[in-house]
Amino acid sequence: MKTARELGLIPQGRLEPGPGNAITDVAGVSVGHRSLRGEGLFTGVTAILPHAGDVFRVKPRAAVEVINGFGKSAGLMQVAELGTIETPIMLTNTFGVAACTEALVRRAISANPAIGRKTSTVNALVCECNDGSINDIQALAVTPADAEAALDAARTGPVEQGAVGAGSGMTAFGFKAGIGTASRRMRVGKRDFTLGTLVLANFGAAGDLVLPDGRRPDPRVPAGPERGSVIVVMATDLPLADRQLQRVARRAGAGLARLGAFWGHGSGDVALCFTTADPVEHEPATAFTTQERLADGHIDIAFRAAADTTQEAVLNALCMAPAMPARNGRIYPCLADWLMENPSP
Amino acid sequence: MKTARELGLIPQGRLEPGPGNAITDVAGVSVGHRSLRGEGLFTGVTAILPHAGDVFRVKPRAAVEVINGFGKSAGLMQVAELGTIETPIMLTNTFGVAACTEALVRRAISANPAIGRKTSTVNALVCECNDGSINDIQALAVTPADAEAALDAARTGPVEQGAVGAGSGMTAFGFKAGIGTASRRMRVGKRDFTLGTLVLANFGAAGDLVLPDGRRPDPRVPAGPERGSVIVVMATDLPLADRQLQRVARRAGAGLARLGAFWGHGSGDVALCFTTADPVEHEPATAFTTQERLADGHIDIAFRAAADTTQEAVLNALCMAPAMPARNGRIYPCLADWLMENPSP
Amino acid sequence: MKTARELGLIPQGRLEPGPGNAITDVAGVSVGHRSLRGEGLFTGVTAILPHAGDVFRVKPRAAVEVINGFGKSAGLMQVAELGTIETPIMLTNTFGVAACTEALVRRAISANPAIGRKTSTVNALVCECNDGSINDIQALAVTPADAEAALDAARTGPVEQGAVGAGSGMTAFGFKAGIGTASRRMRVGKRDFTLGTLVLANFGAAGDLVLPDGRRPDPRVPAGPERGSVIVVMATDLPLADRQLQRVARRAGAGLARLGAFWGHGSGDVALCFTTADPVEHEPATAFTTQERLADGHIDIAFRAAADTTQEAVLNALCMAPAMPARNGRIYPCLADWLMENPSP
Amino acid sequence: MKTARELGLIPQGRLEPGPGNAITDVAGVSVGHRSLRGEGLFTGVTAILPHAGDVFRVKPRAAVEVINGFGKSAGLMQVAELGTIETPIMLTNTFGVAACTEALVRRAISANPAIGRKTSTVNALVCECNDGSINDIQALAVTPADAEAALDAARTGPVEQGAVGAGSGMTAFGFKAGIGTASRRMRVGKRDFTLGTLVLANFGAAGDLVLPDGRRPDPRVPAGPERGSVIVVMATDLPLADRQLQRVARRAGAGLARLGAFWGHGSGDVALCFTTADPVEHEPATAFTTQERLADGHIDIAFRAAADTTQEAVLNALCMAPAMPARNGRIYPCLADWLMENPSP
Repeated sequence: MKTARELGLIPQGRLEPGPGNAITDVAGVSVGHRSLRGEGLFTGVTAILPHAGDVFRVKPRAAVEVINGFGKSAGLMQVAELGTIETPIMLTNTFGVAACTEALVRRAISANPAIGRKTSTVNALVCECNDGSINDIQALAVTPADAEAALDAARTGPVEQGAVGAGSGMTAFGFKAGIGTASRRMRVGKRDFTLGTLVLANFGAAGDLVLPDGRRPDPRVPAGPERGSVIVVMATDLPLADRQLQRVARRAGAGLARLGAFWGHGSGDVALCFTTADPVEHEPATAFTTQERLADGHIDIAFRAAADTTQEAVLNALCMAPAMPARNGRIYPCLADWLMENPSP
Repeated sequence: MKTARELGLIPQGRLEPGPGNAITDVAGVSVGHRSLRGEGLFTGVTAILPHAGDVFRVKPRAAVEVINGFGKSAGLMQVAELGTIETPIMLTNTFGVAACTEALVRRAISANPAIGRKTSTVNALVCECNDGSINDIQALAVTPADAEAALDAARTGPVEQGAVGAGSGMTAFGFKAGIGTASRRMRVGKRDFTLGTLVLANFGAAGDLVLPDGRRPDPRVPAGPERGSVIVVMATDLPLADRQLQRVARRAGAGLARLGAFWGHGSGDVALCFTTADPVEHEPATAFTTQERLADGHIDIAFRAAADTTQEAVLNALCMAPAMPARNGRIYPCLADWLMENPSP
Repeated sequence: MKTARELGLIPQGRLEPGPGNAITDVAGVSVGHRSLRGEGLFTGVTAILPHAGDVFRVKPRAAVEVINGFGKSAGLMQVAELGTIETPIMLTNTFGVAACTEALVRRAISANPAIGRKTSTVNALVCECNDGSINDIQALAVTPADAEAALDAARTGPVEQGAVGAGSGMTAFGFKAGIGTASRRMRVGKRDFTLGTLVLANFGAAGDLVLPDGRRPDPRVPAGPERGSVIVVMATDLPLADRQLQRVARRAGAGLARLGAFWGHGSGDVALCFTTADPVEHEPATAFTTQERLADGHIDIAFRAAADTTQEAVLNALCMAPAMPARNGRIYPCLADWLMENPSP
Repeated sequence: MKTARELGLIPQGRLEPGPGNAITDVAGVSVGHRSLRGEGLFTGVTAILPHAGDVFRVKPRAAVEVINGFGKSAGLMQVAELGTIETPIMLTNTFGVAACTEALVRRAISANPAIGRKTSTVNALVCECNDGSINDIQALAVTPADAEAALDAARTGPVEQGAVGAGSGMTAFGFKAGIGTASRRMRVGKRDFTLGTLVLANFGAAGDLVLPDGRRPDPRVPAGPERGSVIVVMATDLPLADRQLQRVARRAGAGLARLGAFWGHGSGDVALCFTTADPVEHEPATAFTTQERLADGHIDIAFRAAADTTQEAVLNALCMAPAMPARNGRIYPCLADWLMENPSP
C-alpha cells in the first residue's frame, strides 16, 4: 500500500515531515500492534510507548483534549488533573478497554510492588473506538494477553498502518480506515524538534471527506448517522509546559475539521499530547526540579504541526487500509482505489 | 451502630432529612452491596440503580463534577458530554473497575442486543477509591460476578452503611469509614422534593476532621500523605436542567470542606448528580420532548441539600464503620467510639 | 460587492441557506452597525439584538465556547455559568469594550431601575478583536454614544457586511475582512428551523486561507505572527438545551479550521450560540417551567449548520470588504479582486 | 479594630502566619486602596500589584478558578488560556469594572507604546462584587482617576482591612464586611515560602456563618437570597507550574465552605492565584527558558495554605469592618461586636 503522500495527497502546511513521517520519529517512542482475526473477528490492540523505561517511574508530561466526549476511554481524568501519563497508551475497540486496563495494571504492579499499598495506584490509559460494523464487538474478544502482546511488539522505526492492531475493523467517511501516522519537524531557534501523531481513525460520515485539493470522494455507501470515533495521540520532544501541551492537543480538532469532519454527536473524539522533555519522576529525590519551557510566542509552529499531522495521519489510515466487507455484507472501499479511479485533473 | 445524628452530630443546615435519611428516599432509587471477605480481603462492590427499569433505554439526566481528578473512575467523559447515565452507578476499589465495567457491559448487551452493532455502545459508569491500606488490592479480587451480585442485591428502603460493599476497606481522616448516606426534603412552591446522597468515603488526613460542633477528633494514628478518595453520588427528583445538575454536583465539594477536607492532591474526589425527572429515552419516538425545569432563583435549596447531605453522609460512614486493623497492623478506630470517650461539653 | 456564493465560493455542506443567508433569518434577530471614520480611525461597533424586547427581562438561553482565549471579551463567565444572555451582544475593537459595557449597563438600568439594588446587576456581553493594524486603536475612540448608536441602528432583514461597524478595520488571512454572515435551514421532523451566524473576522495568517475548492489565495503581504481574533455569534430558533447549545457553539471551530485556521496562539477565538426558543424570564411567575428540547440523535444537523455558516460567513467577510491600506501603508487586498484575477480552472 | 486572631478566632490549620499575616508578606506584593465617600456613596477601588515593575513586561504566572460564575469580572478568559497576568489586579464594585479597565489600559499603553500596534493588546484584570445594598451603585461613581489613585497608593507592608477601598460597601453573612487578608508560611525541603491571600468579601446568607469553634453568629437581619460575591486573590513565591497554580486557586472554595458558604447561585465567587517565581517576559530574549517547579508530592502544603488563608482573610474582613447602615436603613452589624456580646464559653 502507498501512503497518502505517495498517492499525491499533500496536506496543507508549511512544515516538512520527519524521516519516517511517523510518531516514532520522536526519539524513544515505539509502537506495537496485536491484530485479532477469526470467525467474525477483525479487531486488535495498538500500544504506544513513550519511552523504553518504566513509564510509572518516569512519567511523561501530557494533556488531553476531549473534542467530543461520546466515548469510553479510561484514564483521562487523571491526565487532566495531573498532566502526566504513567502507563503506555493503549488503543482498542470499545469493549476491549477493561482487558487492556487489566494488563496495564498487572504490568505496573509487577514492576512496582508498592503500587496501591505504599504508593498510589496506577492510572491505565486506554482509548477506544467502536469497530462493531466490521468486528463482532459483542464477543469481547480482546484479552489481557492480547494487550500484553501489543506491548511486547512495540518497536521504534517504521509503523505499520491501515487495518492493523486497534485499526483492524475501523472505518472513516464510509471508507475502510484504521491506524495512520505522520510527523513534522519544527525548527525553533537553532534547535530541531519533532511532533509525531498516530490516529485510530473511525469517524466521519460518508460523503463528508474533503481531500487537500478540495475533492470530495464518494464511497458509494449509504450515509448513516456517525457512530464512530477518533483517537489522536501526539508525541513531541519540544519542551512544552502543562498548559501548552493542552493547547497543542486541542489543535487535533483543526486537523480533523480540515478533512470535513464536524465532530459528530455520536463520535468520541479525543486527543492526547505528551512530551518526552523533562518527564516527572514518581519519587523525585528533591522537592524542586527545573523544566525547560518554550516561549509562547513560538508555539504556533507546534499548533501547525498538530493540525497538519492529524490531517495527514488520517489520510494515511484511509489510503493504507484495503477494502473490507462489513458484518452486513456491504463493502467499505479503500480510498487508494478511489484515487486510482479518479485521477486528479 | 448508631448514625451520626443519633450520636449528636447534627450537621449544619436548615433542611429536614427524608424519612430514611438515605439516597433511597428518592423514589425508585435502590442500592445493593456485595462484600468480599477472605484472606487479606476486605473489599467489595456497591451498586446504585436510578430506577427499576432498563437504564440503557431510559437514561436519567446527570452531571459530574471532578473536584480533584487523582482517580481512575470509568465513564465520566460521556456523562460530561451528554448529560445522561445509561448504566447503574457502581462503586468499588481501584482495581475492581475493569470487572464492574465488564459486568455492566454484558448486562446491557444481554438486554439490548443492538448495542455496538445497530446502535451505540454502552457507557459503563464505575467509580473507585483505593482501599489498599486494609485490603490486598493487588489481588484484583473483584470479579464480574461480584458486580452482578451487587446489582442483584439492590433494594429500595434502608441502606446498610459503614464497612459494607465498596466501603468495606475504606478509611477517612484516620478513622475507619466506608459507605454513608443522607437526604434532605426540599419544598419548592407547593411541591415536595428530595435530594439523597450516598458517599464512598476514603479521604482526609488524620487530624483534619472537623465535627459540626467545631471539635477535631484525633484518631491517634500517624498522619501520612492523603492517598484516599471520595465518591459522592446524589439523586434527586427535582426537575433540574443539565447545567443545574452540574452546579448541584459541584456543591459536594462544600460539604467535604466543612468536614475539614481541602481536596488533597492524592485524593480522587468525584461527585455525580442525577435526576429522576424527565429521563431521556434511548430511541425517542419524536424529535422533540418537553422537560420541566426549576427556575434558577430557587436553586439554592438544592445547593444547600447537596452540601448538607454530603457532610452528613460522610459522618454516617465514619460513625457506622467499626474499628478495623490495617494491613500493617495499626488500627483504624471508629469515630463512634471516640465520641463515647469524648462526650460533648 | 458580491457575496462569496455569488463569486462561486460554495462552501462544503448539505444544507440550504435561509432567504437572506444571514443571522437575521432567525425570526426576531436584528443587527445594527455604527462605523467610526476619522483621522486614523477605521473602527466601529456592531450590535446583535436577539429579540425586540427587553433582553434583561426575557433572557435567551445561550452558551459560549472559548476556542482560543487570547482575548478581552466581557461577560462570558456569567454566560458559561448561567446559560443565558441578558443584554444585546456587542462587537467592537479591543479598547472599545469598556465603552460598550457602560452603554449596555446604563440602558439596562434605565429600563430596569431595580438593577443592582433590589435585583442582581446586569451582565454586559461585549466581544472584541484588535483592529490596530488599520485603526488607531490607542485613541480609545469608541464611546458609549457610539454603542448606543449601534443599538439604535439595529434592524431585521439584510445585514450590511464587510468593512462596517466593528468590522471596519479588521483583516483576515492577509486580506481585508470584517463582518460576514450566513444561515442554514434545518428540517427536523416536519418542522423548519434556522441557524444564522455573524462573524467578526480578524484572524488567520497570510497564506493559510483555503477556499472550498482547495485553492490557497496569496495576499502577497508579509506573513507575520497572527495577532487577530474572531468572534462567531450564532442564533437559532431550534429548541436546544443548555448542553446542546454549548456543543453547537463548539462547532464554530470546525468552520474556522476548514478555512485553514489552526486557532493561532495570538488569536482570541470565541463562539456564542443562543436560541430564541423558550427564553428565561428574569422574574418568572412560577418556580417551574417547561422547555422543549431536541433529541440528541438529531443534533448533527445543527452541528453541520454551525460549521457551514461559520465557514461561509468568514468568506463573505473576506469577499465584501474592499482593499484598504494599513497604518504602515501596506495594502490589505480584497479577496473578491483575487478571485477575479485568478478564475477557477 | 482587632483582627479575627486577636479576637480569638483561630482558624483550622497547621501552618503559621507570616510576619504581617497579609498578602504583602509575599515579597514585592503591594496593595493600594481608594475609598469613595459622598452622598449615598460608600464604594471604592483596591489594587494589588504583584511586583514593583512593569507588569506588562514581566508577567507573573497565574491561574483562575471560577467557583460560581454569577459575576462580571474582566480579563479572566485570557488568564485561563495563557496562565499569566499582565496588569495589576483591581477590585471594585460591579459597575466600576469599565472605569478600572480603562485606567489599566491607558497606563499600560503609556508605558508600552507598541501595545495594540506592534504587539498584542493588554488584558486588564478587574474583579468585582455588588455593593448595591449600601452604596448607590447606579451612580457609576468610580472613575479611571479613582483607579489610578488606588494604583498610586499601593504599598508593601501592612494592609488596611475592613470597609476600605473596594470593600467599603460590602457585606457578608448579614454582617458588614469588605477587605481582609491573611498569610501562611510554608517550609518545603529547607526553603521557606509564603502564600498570602486578600479577599473582597461580599457573600454568604445571614445565619450561615460558622466560626472556627463551631458557633453560628446571628446578625439579626432578615435572611434574603444571596446576591453577593467574593473575590479571592492569592500570591505566593512558591515555584508552581501552570496546572499547580490552578489547583491551588481551586482550594479557595474549601476555605469559603468552612465558613458555612455553599457558593450560592447569585454569588460571583472567583479565585486567582499568582506566583512571583519565574515570571514570563513579554519579549523574551530566547525561545526557551527554564522554570522551577514544585514536585506534586509536596503540593498539599500549598492547598492547606490556600484554604486556611481564605478562611482567615474573610474572618478578618468581618471583624475589622464597623457596623454600617444599608441604603434601606437597616444596620449591618460588626462581627467583632457580636463576639464581645457572645463570649466563647
